[in-house]
Amino acid sequence: MSEKPRVVVDPHFRKMSEIFSDADLSRLHQTVDVVWGRDDAMPVDSARAALGDAIALVCGGWRYGTVPEDACNLRAIIDVSGGFPETLDYDRCFARGIRVLSAAPAFGPQVAEMALGMALAASREIVAGDRAMRAGEERRSHLGNATTFQLYRQPIGFIGFGSIARCLRPLLAPFNCPIAVYDPWLADGYLRSQGVEPVSLEQLLATSRVIFVLATPSTENRALLSRELLARISTGVVLVLVSRAHVVDFDALTELVLQGRFKAAIDVFPEEPLPADHPIRTAPGAVLSAHRAGSVKEGLWELGRMVVDDLEAIARGLPPQQLQAAQPELIGHVATSRIPKPRS
Amino acid sequence: MSEKPRVVVDPHFRKMSEIFSDADLSRLHQTVDVVWGRDDAMPVDSARAALGDAIALVCGGWRYGTVPEDACNLRAIIDVSGGFPETLDYDRCFARGIRVLSAAPAFGPQVAEMALGMALAASREIVAGDRAMRAGEERRSHLGNATTFQLYRQPIGFIGFGSIARCLRPLLAPFNCPIAVYDPWLADGYLRSQGVEPVSLEQLLATSRVIFVLATPSTENRALLSRELLARISTGVVLVLVSRAHVVDFDALTELVLQGRFKAAIDVFPEEPLPADHPIRTAPGAVLSAHRAGSVKEGLWELGRMVVDDLEAIARGLPPQQLQAAQPELIGHVATSRIPKPRS
Amino acid sequence: MSEKPRVVVDPHFRKMSEIFSDADLSRLHQTVDVVWGRDDAMPVDSARAALGDAIALVCGGWRYGTVPEDACNLRAIIDVSGGFPETLDYDRCFARGIRVLSAAPAFGPQVAEMALGMALAASREIVAGDRAMRAGEERRSHLGNATTFQLYRQPIGFIGFGSIARCLRPLLAPFNCPIAVYDPWLADGYLRSQGVEPVSLEQLLATSRVIFVLATPSTENRALLSRELLARISTGVVLVLVSRAHVVDFDALTELVLQGRFKAAIDVFPEEPLPADHPIRTAPGAVLSAHRAGSVKEGLWELGRMVVDDLEAIARGLPPQQLQAAQPELIGHVATSRIPKPRS
Amino acid sequence: MSEKPRVVVDPHFRKMSEIFSDADLSRLHQTVDVVWGRDDAMPVDSARAALGDAIALVCGGWRYGTVPEDACNLRAIIDVSGGFPETLDYDRCFARGIRVLSAAPAFGPQVAEMALGMALAASREIVAGDRAMRAGEERRSHLGNATTFQLYRQPIGFIGFGSIARCLRPLLAPFNCPIAVYDPWLADGYLRSQGVEPVSLEQLLATSRVIFVLATPSTENRALLSRELLARISTGVVLVLVSRAHVVDFDALTELVLQGRFKAAIDVFPEEPLPADHPIRTAPGAVLSAHRAGSVKEGLWELGRMVVDDLEAIARGLPPQQLQAAQPELIGHVATSRIPKPRS
Repeated sequence: MSEKPRVVVDPHFRKMSEIFSDADLSRLHQTVDVVWGRDDAMPVDSARAALGDAIALVCGGWRYGTVPEDACNLRAIIDVSGGFPETLDYDRCFARGIRVLSAAPAFGPQVAEMALGMALAASREIVAGDRAMRAGEERRSHLGNATTFQLYRQPIGFIGFGSIARCLRPLLAPFNCPIAVYDPWLADGYLRSQGVEPVSLEQLLATSRVIFVLATPSTENRALLSRELLARISTGVVLVLVSRAHVVDFDALTELVLQGRFKAAIDVFPEEPLPADHPIRTAPGAVLSAHRAGSVKEGLWELGRMVVDDLEAIARGLPPQQLQAAQPELIGHVATSRIPKPRS
Repeated sequence: MSEKPRVVVDPHFRKMSEIFSDADLSRLHQTVDVVWGRDDAMPVDSARAALGDAIALVCGGWRYGTVPEDACNLRAIIDVSGGFPETLDYDRCFARGIRVLSAAPAFGPQVAEMALGMALAASREIVAGDRAMRAGEERRSHLGNATTFQLYRQPIGFIGFGSIARCLRPLLAPFNCPIAVYDPWLADGYLRSQGVEPVSLEQLLATSRVIFVLATPSTENRALLSRELLARISTGVVLVLVSRAHVVDFDALTELVLQGRFKAAIDVFPEEPLPADHPIRTAPGAVLSAHRAGSVKEGLWELGRMVVDDLEAIARGLPPQQLQAAQPELIGHVATSRIPKPRS
Repeated sequence: MSEKPRVVVDPHFRKMSEIFSDADLSRLHQTVDVVWGRDDAMPVDSARAALGDAIALVCGGWRYGTVPEDACNLRAIIDVSGGFPETLDYDRCFARGIRVLSAAPAFGPQVAEMALGMALAASREIVAGDRAMRAGEERRSHLGNATTFQLYRQPIGFIGFGSIARCLRPLLAPFNCPIAVYDPWLADGYLRSQGVEPVSLEQLLATSRVIFVLATPSTENRALLSRELLARISTGVVLVLVSRAHVVDFDALTELVLQGRFKAAIDVFPEEPLPADHPIRTAPGAVLSAHRAGSVKEGLWELGRMVVDDLEAIARGLPPQQLQAAQPELIGHVATSRIPKPRS
Repeated sequence: MSEKPRVVVDPHFRKMSEIFSDADLSRLHQTVDVVWGRDDAMPVDSARAALGDAIALVCGGWRYGTVPEDACNLRAIIDVSGGFPETLDYDRCFARGIRVLSAAPAFGPQVAEMALGMALAASREIVAGDRAMRAGEERRSHLGNATTFQLYRQPIGFIGFGSIARCLRPLLAPFNCPIAVYDPWLADGYLRSQGVEPVSLEQLLATSRVIFVLATPSTENRALLSRELLARISTGVVLVLVSRAHVVDFDALTELVLQGRFKAAIDVFPEEPLPADHPIRTAPGAVLSAHRAGSVKEGLWELGRMVVDDLEAIARGLPPQQLQAAQPELIGHVATSRIPKPRS
C-alpha cells in the first residue's frame, strides 16, 4: 500500500504525453500515487469512487456529477483545458476549501509571444510582403514601407489584463511603449501598480496604435467590441485578436478590415474551422492564424510542469502557487463555452 | 554674413524630407548655416568650393575628388547612405582629424525590430499559417504547430555584433535566450562584457536555434556562410538574413531551404530586384521581404535626428556622439558595394 | 441615507493620517461609507454592531470576539499592522468566504530598499568608513578597502521568498547576482519560474556572499538560524536581517559578529528597545538600525493606497488584488507575536 | 626570438598584481611579448628605446619625454591611473594615429555601486542610524524616520554623464526615477537617446531629490557648484559627491551641510588626507568616505581585464573596444591634476 497521497489524473481532453514531458511525468509519479493517468476518459463511477481518498483531481472539465460527499481530502480540482469547468458546484467547493484551478497561466508565454509576432507581422507587413514576393509583385525598400510603422514608443492598448497580458508586457518592455489597459475586473490602483494606465474602452480604442484583445470571455463581454466601437478605430492601427472571438462583433471586424480601415491579426474565430468562403480569408490587411497561438508542443509541457509543481505543493500541505484559482466573485461571470479542439 | 558655422548638405541619394522631420530640419537651420540642402545633386565644383569654410559635409557617398587642401575647418564627413564612402582618401582624413561618419546606427532599431518580427514569423509559422488560411488548407491548433517552436530560452547566434545586434539584444532580453556571437572584429573580453558569449562560426551554427546574420559586408566575409557551413545547420533552425546577401552563398541557401533542411527569413538578396523566377520565391520554409527592414518612413528620420544631434555637437566643438566613426584599422576591410535603392 | 457600501475603519494601532494620504482618504470616502475612521480605538460593542451591514473591516489586529453571526455582507477583514490577526477564528472566515487580508505587501518596497542599502553599507563598509572619518582614523583608497567587496555577480541567498524578497529581487537584478532561495512554503518549480534557485538552508549558508534573512516568523522557524548553522557562514560574508529576530539565535549571531567571523546588518532585535548594554552595539562589523526599514513616512501611505484600491475592488464585487490573503494551509503556522510600536 | 607583438608594461603607479588577476596576467603573456612588466618604475631611457618596436605602452601617466620618432608601430598609450596623461604631446599622437587610452571605464561599476550605497546610506540614514544605536540614542520605527525618504520615483540629477553615470543608470533603473542630466560635453539628442533628460545645471539643482556629482574635472568646471548654486538646493535633498572635489566649492558645501540645509555623501575631498580638524568631519548630515569608491581590490582587476582585452584587439589589428580614447576636441579641457594615492 502506497503512502504517497493519491491524485486522480484524467485529462482525457488532452493526452498524457501532450501535457507532461517525460521528466515531469516521472516527477508526478515520484510525488503522488497516480490513479488512472491514461489518455482515454476514466469511467465516471470509478472516478467518483477514487475521489474518496484523493487529495486532487487533474481533469479536462468536470463531468463527475456532484462533488462526492466522501471526498474529504480533496484539496484541488485542476482543469487542464485552459479554462474553468462549466458544470461544477463552485459554492460547495469554496465552502469545503477545495480550490478549483485553471491552467490558463501556462498558456500565457506562448500566446503572448504569438501576439507580439502577429503584431509585428501586421505593423511591418511581413505577411503581406512575403505574399507580394511570391506573386512577383513586391515593392522594394521604402516603396514597400508606405503603410508600415515601428512599434517603438507607440501607444499600446490591452483589452484584458490577465495571464496573456502579464506575459506580453515584458516582451513589449524594450519597445518603450506606454500601455493603456481596459479591464473591468481590476481596480485602477492595481493596474497602476503594474506600470500600466487604466482607461475606458473608448479611450483605449481612440488612442492606441496597436490594440491587443486579450480578454477572457465572460457573460458580460460578448461582442464588447461592437460595430460602433470598432468603427472608432483609426486608420493605420493594428488590432490583434488572440483570446476569443466572443469578445468582438466579428462580422463588423471583417467588414472594416476588408474596407482597409485598419489591420487585424486574428488567431480565433467565431466558428472553427472557419467556413471556406468566409470573406476575412481574402482581406489584404489581415494576418490569419488557425487558433495556433496556444498550442505549441513544448508550450503544453509548461502546463504539465505547473500542474506537477502545484501538486508537489499540495502534497506538502501548501497552497498551489502557479495555477489560477477560481475566485468566488468572478466565477459566475466567466463564460465557459469552449471550441472543441481537434485530436490528431 | 552668418556667424553660424557652415555645413554643406548634399544628400542627393536621399531626399531632404526623407531624412529630416520638419522639427529636425528646423533645428538644423537653427544650428548651422546650411549650404545647398536640396534634393538634387550639388555640382561637384560648387561643393568643393563650399567645403573651404565648412565644418562638415552631409553627403550620400563621396563624389568630390580629393579632399580639398583648403578645407581647413572640416571636422566631419557624414554619409547618410548607411555605409562608409567608397572612394574617399581615408588616410588623409585621419591625418587631418576629419572624422568620417556613417549613419548605420540610425538603422539599428528598425532593422532589429524587423529581424525579431521575421524570426517569430518563421519560428511560429505566422506567414505560412496565413498562407494556409487563404488557401483554405489550414491545420488548426496543435495540428498547425507540428514544426513551430517558442523563442523562450532558445540558444541564439549573432553573426556580427554591430549596430543591428546591439539593438536586437534588448528586444530578445525578455525571452531569456543565451546569445552566442561570432564577430572577428571584436575581442572576446569585450563581447563577454556585453553579456554575450564569443564562439567560433562553426560552433554558432551547430548550437543555435535561431541564427541572425547581421554582419557588415567586408572584403573578408563574402560567402562566409559557405555551402559547407550552411549544410551543418540543424533541422528546425531558423536563419534570419537582414544585413547583406554578400555574407551568404545564396545558391546554397536557396537549395537547403527548398529541401526543407531549415527555415530562412530573408530581407536581402544577391540581386535586387530578385529575378521573377528565382526559386527561393517558392520555398515553403522561407519568409521573404524585399529589402524593407531598414526603410520605414519614421525610421529614416532617426537618421536625420542623429545627424542634427551630431552637427550640434560638432558646432559646439565637441566630438560627434551617435553616428559611427570610421576606424583606421577597419576601414580598409569594409566592403562598400551598394545596392541601388529605388526612388519613388 | 448613504447607498455606498459600509466599511468599518478602526486602525487604532496606526493613525489615520499615517496610513492614508490626503488623496487616498478622500478616495476612501468617495468609495465607501466609512464607519468610525478615527485614531482612537472603536468600542468593541459598537464595532460588532457596525459589522452587521459592513462589507469590510479595516483594523489593527482582531479584538472583536467571535465573528458576528449577522455579519452577512462581510467580505474582508483587513489588518493594517503588517501581519495577520492573532485571535481570529479563521476557519469560520474561510467557510463564510470572508477574506482575511494582510498589508504586508505594502512594506515590501521600502524594506527591500533598506535591505539593499544596508547590504551595501556592510559590503562597501560605508558605515565603518564614516565612523573612521569622524574618529580621524580613516584609511584611504585601497588601504580602506582591505575587507570590502562589490556586489556584482556575487552569489546571493534569500531566506524566505515573500513580499520583501519579491521587491528585493528587481533591485538586485542590475548586479547580475545568481539568487538562491530557501523557503519551505514554496515549491521548487515555482521558485525556478521566478528566476531563483531553490536550495537547502545549509547550501545557501555555505555558498552565499550576501545572505538576506527575509522570512516571516512562523511556528516552525524560531531560531532557524541556529548557532550551529550560523557557525558555518564563511568569513567575509554579509548577513542582512530585516524580517524578524525570531528567525535567528541572536546570542550566537552577536558572538560571531563580535569575533569578526562575518558582517551583519541588523534592523530587528529580540528585544526592542535593545538593552543599552547589549554587546552587538559595539561590534565593529555590524550595521545597526532601530527597526526602521518598514516605517518611512510615505511608505505607510503605500499601505493606505493598497487598502483603498482593494476596497474599491471589493465594493465593485471583485476580489481584492494587492493585499495578501490568508491561506488556510499556512495560517496556522504563521507566528503572530508582535513587537509593540512606539507612538509619537 | 618572439613573434608576438611587443608591449611595454610600466604601470609603476600601481603594482602588477593590483591590476592584473593571475588569469589576466597569464593571458597578457600569451597575447604579447611583455617588456618590463615590473612594479618599480622603468628607467626612462630603456622605456624610450623599447618603444621603438612596441605596439603599445601600458603606463601610469606619461613620463618619457617626446613621443619617440622611431616608435613607428606604436598604436596605443594606455594610462592605468584612471585619467589621461598630463604632459603628453596629444597632437602628435593624433596625427600619427596613436590612440591615447584611459582606464576610466574600469572604475565605473565600482564607483557607481558606491554612489548608490552612499545615496541610500544618506536617504535612509543608515549611517546616522547606526551611530545613534552605538550611542544608545536611537529612535525606533517611524520616530527614526522623521527625515528619511525612499528612492522610488524620486527625481534624480546627474552632473556629468560619463563612465560612472553610465554604470549608475542601470543600478537606479528598478527605482523608476526620472533622471535629469547636466553635461556640457554631450548633445541633448544624445542624452535623450540614452533615456535621460538634458537640463540646465540650475534646473537640475532645483528639481532633483538626489544629486549625483559625477563630472570629470575639467579646466572649465572648477567649483562649478558654487556657493550660490549650492544655496539653491532644497531642504531634504541628498548630494552625492564621488568624482572629484574640484567640481564643488567645498567650503560652501561644508557650511551648508553643517547648517543642515541638505545631506551630503562625500568620497572625495579638496585635500587628502583631509585635515583632522576639518569641520565636515563632524556634520551629522554627512556620510563620509576616504576616497574609497574606486579602489576595491577585485575592482582594479577589471582594469587589468580591459587592458588585456584591448591589447588582444590591438595585437590583432583591431581598434581597442573598452578603454576610453582621448578625443581631440576634449583633451585640452580635461583637468589632469591627480591626488597622489597611498601605497601599502
